[in-house]
Amino acid sequence: MSILIRGGVVVNADREFRADVLCDNGKIIAVGEHLPTPLDVEVIEADGLYVMPGGIDPHTHMQLPFMGTVTQDDFFSGTAAGLAGGTTSIIDFVIPNPQQSLMEAFHTWRGWAEKSASDYSFHVAVTWWDDSVHADMGKLVNEHGVNSFKHFMAYKNAIMADDEILVKSFRRALELGAMPTVHAENGELVYLLQQELLKKGQTGPDAHPLSRPPIVEGEAAQRAIAIANVLNTPLYIVHVSCRESLDAITRARASGQRVFGEVLAGHLTIDDSVYQHPDFAHAAGHVMSPPFRSSSHQQALWQGLQGGNLHTTATDHCTFCAEQKAAGKNDFTKIPNGCGGIEERMMVLWDAGVNTGRLTPSEFVKVTSTNCAQIFNIYPRKGVIAVGADADIVLWDAHASKTLSAKTQFSKGDFNVFEGRTVKGIPTYTISNGKLVYKLGQLMAQTAAGNYVKRPPFSAMFGALNKMRESEKQA
Amino acid sequence: MSILIRGGVVVNADREFRADVLCDNGKIIAVGEHLPTPLDVEVIEADGLYVMPGGIDPHTHMQLPFMGTVTQDDFFSGTAAGLAGGTTSIIDFVIPNPQQSLMEAFHTWRGWAEKSASDYSFHVAVTWWDDSVHADMGKLVNEHGVNSFKHFMAYKNAIMADDEILVKSFRRALELGAMPTVHAENGELVYLLQQELLKKGQTGPDAHPLSRPPIVEGEAAQRAIAIANVLNTPLYIVHVSCRESLDAITRARASGQRVFGEVLAGHLTIDDSVYQHPDFAHAAGHVMSPPFRSSSHQQALWQGLQGGNLHTTATDHCTFCAEQKAAGKNDFTKIPNGCGGIEERMMVLWDAGVNTGRLTPSEFVKVTSTNCAQIFNIYPRKGVIAVGADADIVLWDAHASKTLSAKTQFSKGDFNVFEGRTVKGIPTYTISNGKLVYKLGQLMAQTAAGNYVKRPPFSAMFGALNKMRESEKQA
Amino acid sequence: MSILIRGGVVVNADREFRADVLCDNGKIIAVGEHLPTPLDVEVIEADGLYVMPGGIDPHTHMQLPFMGTVTQDDFFSGTAAGLAGGTTSIIDFVIPNPQQSLMEAFHTWRGWAEKSASDYSFHVAVTWWDDSVHADMGKLVNEHGVNSFKHFMAYKNAIMADDEILVKSFRRALELGAMPTVHAENGELVYLLQQELLKKGQTGPDAHPLSRPPIVEGEAAQRAIAIANVLNTPLYIVHVSCRESLDAITRARASGQRVFGEVLAGHLTIDDSVYQHPDFAHAAGHVMSPPFRSSSHQQALWQGLQGGNLHTTATDHCTFCAEQKAAGKNDFTKIPNGCGGIEERMMVLWDAGVNTGRLTPSEFVKVTSTNCAQIFNIYPRKGVIAVGADADIVLWDAHASKTLSAKTQFSKGDFNVFEGRTVKGIPTYTISNGKLVYKLGQLMAQTAAGNYVKRPPFSAMFGALNKMRESEKQA
Amino acid sequence: MSILIRGGVVVNADREFRADVLCDNGKIIAVGEHLPTPLDVEVIEADGLYVMPGGIDPHTHMQLPFMGTVTQDDFFSGTAAGLAGGTTSIIDFVIPNPQQSLMEAFHTWRGWAEKSASDYSFHVAVTWWDDSVHADMGKLVNEHGVNSFKHFMAYKNAIMADDEILVKSFRRALELGAMPTVHAENGELVYLLQQELLKKGQTGPDAHPLSRPPIVEGEAAQRAIAIANVLNTPLYIVHVSCRESLDAITRARASGQRVFGEVLAGHLTIDDSVYQHPDFAHAAGHVMSPPFRSSSHQQALWQGLQGGNLHTTATDHCTFCAEQKAAGKNDFTKIPNGCGGIEERMMVLWDAGVNTGRLTPSEFVKVTSTNCAQIFNIYPRKGVIAVGADADIVLWDAHASKTLSAKTQFSKGDFNVFEGRTVKGIPTYTISNGKLVYKLGQLMAQTAAGNYVKRPPFSAMFGALNKMRESEKQA
Repeated sequence: MSILIRGGVVVNADREFRADVLCDNGKIIAVGEHLPTPLDVEVIEADGLYVMPGGIDPHTHMQLPFMGTVTQDDFFSGTAAGLAGGTTSIIDFVIPNPQQSLMEAFHTWRGWAEKSASDYSFHVAVTWWDDSVHADMGKLVNEHGVNSFKHFMAYKNAIMADDEILVKSFRRALELGAMPTVHAENGELVYLLQQELLKKGQTGPDAHPLSRPPIVEGEAAQRAIAIANVLNTPLYIVHVSCRESLDAITRARASGQRVFGEVLAGHLTIDDSVYQHPDFAHAAGHVMSPPFRSSSHQQALWQGLQGGNLHTTATDHCTFCAEQKAAGKNDFTKIPNGCGGIEERMMVLWDAGVNTGRLTPSEFVKVTSTNCAQIFNIYPRKGVIAVGADADIVLWDAHASKTLSAKTQFSKGDFNVFEGRTVKGIPTYTISNGKLVYKLGQLMAQTAAGNYVKRPPFSAMFGALNKMRESEKQA
Repeated sequence: MSILIRGGVVVNADREFRADVLCDNGKIIAVGEHLPTPLDVEVIEADGLYVMPGGIDPHTHMQLPFMGTVTQDDFFSGTAAGLAGGTTSIIDFVIPNPQQSLMEAFHTWRGWAEKSASDYSFHVAVTWWDDSVHADMGKLVNEHGVNSFKHFMAYKNAIMADDEILVKSFRRALELGAMPTVHAENGELVYLLQQELLKKGQTGPDAHPLSRPPIVEGEAAQRAIAIANVLNTPLYIVHVSCRESLDAITRARASGQRVFGEVLAGHLTIDDSVYQHPDFAHAAGHVMSPPFRSSSHQQALWQGLQGGNLHTTATDHCTFCAEQKAAGKNDFTKIPNGCGGIEERMMVLWDAGVNTGRLTPSEFVKVTSTNCAQIFNIYPRKGVIAVGADADIVLWDAHASKTLSAKTQFSKGDFNVFEGRTVKGIPTYTISNGKLVYKLGQLMAQTAAGNYVKRPPFSAMFGALNKMRESEKQA
Repeated sequence: MSILIRGGVVVNADREFRADVLCDNGKIIAVGEHLPTPLDVEVIEADGLYVMPGGIDPHTHMQLPFMGTVTQDDFFSGTAAGLAGGTTSIIDFVIPNPQQSLMEAFHTWRGWAEKSASDYSFHVAVTWWDDSVHADMGKLVNEHGVNSFKHFMAYKNAIMADDEILVKSFRRALELGAMPTVHAENGELVYLLQQELLKKGQTGPDAHPLSRPPIVEGEAAQRAIAIANVLNTPLYIVHVSCRESLDAITRARASGQRVFGEVLAGHLTIDDSVYQHPDFAHAAGHVMSPPFRSSSHQQALWQGLQGGNLHTTATDHCTFCAEQKAAGKNDFTKIPNGCGGIEERMMVLWDAGVNTGRLTPSEFVKVTSTNCAQIFNIYPRKGVIAVGADADIVLWDAHASKTLSAKTQFSKGDFNVFEGRTVKGIPTYTISNGKLVYKLGQLMAQTAAGNYVKRPPFSAMFGALNKMRESEKQA
Repeated sequence: MSILIRGGVVVNADREFRADVLCDNGKIIAVGEHLPTPLDVEVIEADGLYVMPGGIDPHTHMQLPFMGTVTQDDFFSGTAAGLAGGTTSIIDFVIPNPQQSLMEAFHTWRGWAEKSASDYSFHVAVTWWDDSVHADMGKLVNEHGVNSFKHFMAYKNAIMADDEILVKSFRRALELGAMPTVHAENGELVYLLQQELLKKGQTGPDAHPLSRPPIVEGEAAQRAIAIANVLNTPLYIVHVSCRESLDAITRARASGQRVFGEVLAGHLTIDDSVYQHPDFAHAAGHVMSPPFRSSSHQQALWQGLQGGNLHTTATDHCTFCAEQKAAGKNDFTKIPNGCGGIEERMMVLWDAGVNTGRLTPSEFVKVTSTNCAQIFNIYPRKGVIAVGADADIVLWDAHASKTLSAKTQFSKGDFNVFEGRTVKGIPTYTISNGKLVYKLGQLMAQTAAGNYVKRPPFSAMFGALNKMRESEKQA
């Protein structure tokens, strides 16, 4: 069945305009004023609503294994919660254990994700290095639609990638036309600070941010940028949380380097006072890395979005329940790292971004979907309301309000970092692959309705970078 | 008659894609693969060519009066030369004398421009202040489609706007939803340096750049940005020529301020050694303000374009002949300021920008048309290949070459700042308002074929800025 | 009579060392370990105390005329209060009315200052321009020991110097070997904001900081720096109060420019919440320009001192009583601008600077006297404990504490911006011109005991700047 | 025997003044105008000469073992050459092999250095880590007068210190009151680039700078600064050669961090065109790391010195002969790294620094001796002309000239990176430990006349840093 969205204001990254939108067979097939109404079509009256590309969350961890358990949200409940919040695609992470084959891990995650309610894709982490990793990267890019690889610069003695791995993997990524991405924190410093804090008896969640100060993130961002600069690769930095790493990106971009930054809805709106909360469950519920920062960093992050030095917004959705968080009751380094947010991201961003004048609606679309689609090369299939695009659409009521809470969330789990926040501007309808999956508070997500999205390599940007390498060679 | 462009690669700011483009009655009416061929259509085979939005030059001075003469190119010859270079629209300047009514000057320029071969629009300069200026600004915005006002921070004792005028005019522009723009050079310093150089006997064209060092431009840019910041207006800075003013823009943008920068094709590619040329005509032929800079500034300007801190490319096309330039034979301050370039801009930018890998083709489109159309609020009428847009199109052969010269230019005048430069990547067909006006070296421009383009006020950006002012008031 | 300071730790800008200090006839005549005790000498046991150069406050307004009254502290009470706080010299300001002869104003101020208890000198303000000003600047430098000229970039319609005056006066200063100094605030913007606030009914002291936001100061600092850069003069910026102007200085210094910054003890330690105080007298008591800023600016200012981008600490001591402040009861723009601090400066700086580890004791000396003496060319007569220097000395007890209050201050007036602050680290003895003038809470200042200090032009720095000008000329 | 220097102008870091200087028994015992002439004194007439503290070169490698040979200059010839150039102290490096005991290496170097003609001291490199290194660092600081440790961030598979070593060693240094220093280049990137260049057949000396681009240095500087910031240690960065690492230092200093930068005379004056020289011996003669840079970096480095972001000037004196350099005839990575300069440093700096107006004579003294003495805690024993200081003095003729050449140098070896440069401003007399060792071209250096200089830990700066740590703990 087809859907006709009638009378709304379409918001794309480049402009707003009044138009009807017709979807059929999972695709947008017409956009225009006063479209004729086909037979057998479901009409959604969108008068007074914005019609926007469904959100893409480029950073989630659904169903993440953790010490014999998994995070609360599996691929179905997590993507379903996303749909309730207007997010119609995710890019999750395949994280091989060191020494584990990348292909094996990839297939495992692909299996888990089949139940997804919305479209999904995968970044693959490079957590170790040998010839098989080099080979598997090629296979993933050329045969499996992976065009981005993740590197953890933190987590010493676990999945940390040292400079040697970064250098080799970035080089390989360029060869393949794939985007290197990094979690930027200096793992050696974090490790030392953790040990020193524990030694001093600072074992509670309030020690967590002390073990990961902003400069630790800024250093790693700067280092990854330098490596990308020397190797002439682009770079995508996940969850930029502080002025220091943003400044590194800003400087690099001002000098023409192709660096992209992602920021989490949480880092934009929550400050580090949460770690002082006397209730362990509350404080631990906010433990993630990088941690929440003092409010002056939030101002910087908003400026980064406004000035075009940060490009995408994400959540790092990774939900642990109170019982799981309690593993770190006596040692903050053992608290599993992670917070939710996929359901709230767009509402929180609209409220704190558009209602305040920081962002125009078009800029909102840019940072919730378009930029992500362009950077990871699934544009214009995703990230725009246009003929030929996937019918992933959210209808937005800028005047309606809602109070966010764990009690009313669709996401699994017993905690919500946005608990009690009242936001104005909420999704009223969500369409995923041409089907109405959310309507005025009612979620109609279906298991396995989502598709795996292959992302092709070799965007125009790489072409330009390769030209630059050649000019250098000649110069 | 209609035109069907068949088999090319459409390049828009957001992506490249293979599609046919059908134009009718001055508009693009279809974009798609394998469009059917209508009857009575002229087919242009574009296989192997890029199909791009026609260029917009936001900074020209056609037919500028100067001491009883005028510049070489009038509105016809100047816009026709633009068409030969793939540029299908200009925004020229109405420059009232101090004490002259803005409306009077506006009508004078409108009259001159009627013979234009391509579409045109006007910025209006605010060169003095009283209540009538305040009133005329309102009339221009509300009745005449002007949405930008220009302020010269240089040219003391002539058209210089001091801080008091800037403050009042910016405030008024915000009220009206119009964009303030500035020529950023500190007029007091230029004046002092000119006097000192003349006193020391440095009267030749080589003294020209010494009288306008980069810091003089950087200061003024920074000052205009500060005023815009305090008054919460956007700001557009014309012909950014050096690292100092670019840095001011970059810092402002990084802090979220809505500042836009324009750069000239000449400043990107020509260095200040031209002023050392022993031949007065040659050196004087390059006299414009700001002057050409040393090559390290060029590198910075390219980085500004790449990093998104500069947005538009222009020419400040303003052509004086050798005889006119000779007015400053014995006193460099009397050399009329101005150089050409409207015909060469896009070729020079492609060659130095795309061929080197600095810009992707989509970025080329962004900085030659799309950004300009968005900033001055004529998008998507201009600046994109899409259904409903004006049929202003250039077909680009990335493999063809050409050597630029005053001898072969369509532009009037006896001088070419790009003389002898061989560029690869040239326009082969230009379509303006749906008519083929340039084809493989043959120019078919027609007098008065261009339309005056009204530019409406109140873009989304101003809405956001006004929201920010309100949040501040409440805070 | 002589004074022997025995057993203390001498702190100079370059190091600390244990030594006795012998003063005779107004001069230091010996510094060394275990000096023999002359006959007829007063011995001060300094065991456990620091022996430091007496403070120099480069920014005071004693006895300033204001609407038919004068500020509370005249040159005697003001300098006496300084002595009680360890400050043994001031540089005050001669401020001619526009059109008033500089020489006439200078002689008036010289007359007022004769009663000073400590040494004093004068900056002279350039508030207007004609040939007599040009001539008087020469006379002041060559005959009267003035080597610095002040320019107010704020106070439109009163003493504001526009760019034309700045340019002419800076040029003249360079010729004379004198230092240009500026009060950096954009007077046009301040004026506009004041008018708008009043129009909106915001008439109270809380509107004062809103009328002078940081960017207004940053702009003016940047502009003065650019002018100094172009004219190749050094520059001294008074009362830097915010990150924006500090950043301008930092950038200029990083590029090798000779720019110096002064910061007030108040701006380092008091934040802008004072303007929200419900009691008019309290809020108005803090009205000065630039205003106190939010706390993030304080952190920046401390960093500026630590990193060597700010050089001197001052007070802008200018005390109005409640009755005088009440002139602006219904219009904040009429509140006389000024706060005290000469008595507290060194204690506040030690407590907030040295006790926290931000500054070493040597750095404290640098920023309270040595840098000032060097910049204004009275070093090593002032600013160092060394043979031949003036016997202006403060003995400092780093372990003693004191609570600051208007009730117990020596300074005249009914208000103290540091009211209730308890500081650790206080002066216990002050020696001025070889005489003990303050001892353990007892002030023995004498009228007219201070000397006018002539400051010669042409320091080494100017020599270097002139060399640079010559190299440029040749290049 | 005593020496009386009569009639010169003493230049210290804080000022210039006319004074006689009397030396006896290795110390300065009087400084003053018209000193009486003792019996049995050698009088040096210094009329028209500057009398300055002898230079300190904080970065030399005398007698460095290399593949079974050693560098050309041993501790005698190297220090003697220094004396001929006005440099009276060096700080050389003890470089243990990985797994070699620090104490063992220290004693080896101490033995080699006994023949030194001038005073000398040692930094000790930390090239590996275990408990013995931790212990030996303590012994070196507490018993042997070492207060600085060096870390090579480059030279993978040899002496490179990775982040884990840096973190542990910096922490230990803070505990001991010793200064961590780094050679800042990212070893992984250098290694990769070297391999790639060789693979492409770029084996000549022109590939050397390509394997170590500025960003590689900037990254490492930034990383070391971040580690120092987190651990709250000071940091000294050796041979800063480019804008990128200078910018990292400048930013850190502007935020109050205690970071110090050293720059080499060569990096200030020689550009990277030397590597294009067709003669292998010439090009290879300039191979050192970091390499010489393009001229825009030189300008930045001078600005760094002027603005106080760079503090010391050194040479990295390490002389290999043509035969030794030839080891890399077919593989640039095998060319031994090193150039000379100890003899020329002060002349080159005076000529390019003082003669151009970039530096005043006092600033010259600051960057050639005083800052170094203060940072490494041997001030005021070294670095100042004052009573009690070591009689290490250079008399400087600002008007005399000299042409530098390998043919006329006192330094051993067959190469001079300053070959053919004519400098104005040269040493005419050098006094070391109170003895005249150089006079008008005649060198009278004596074997073993120099003393080992112990440098005590725990300067005031560390006290402040520790206070800051404590305030943080409480906060």
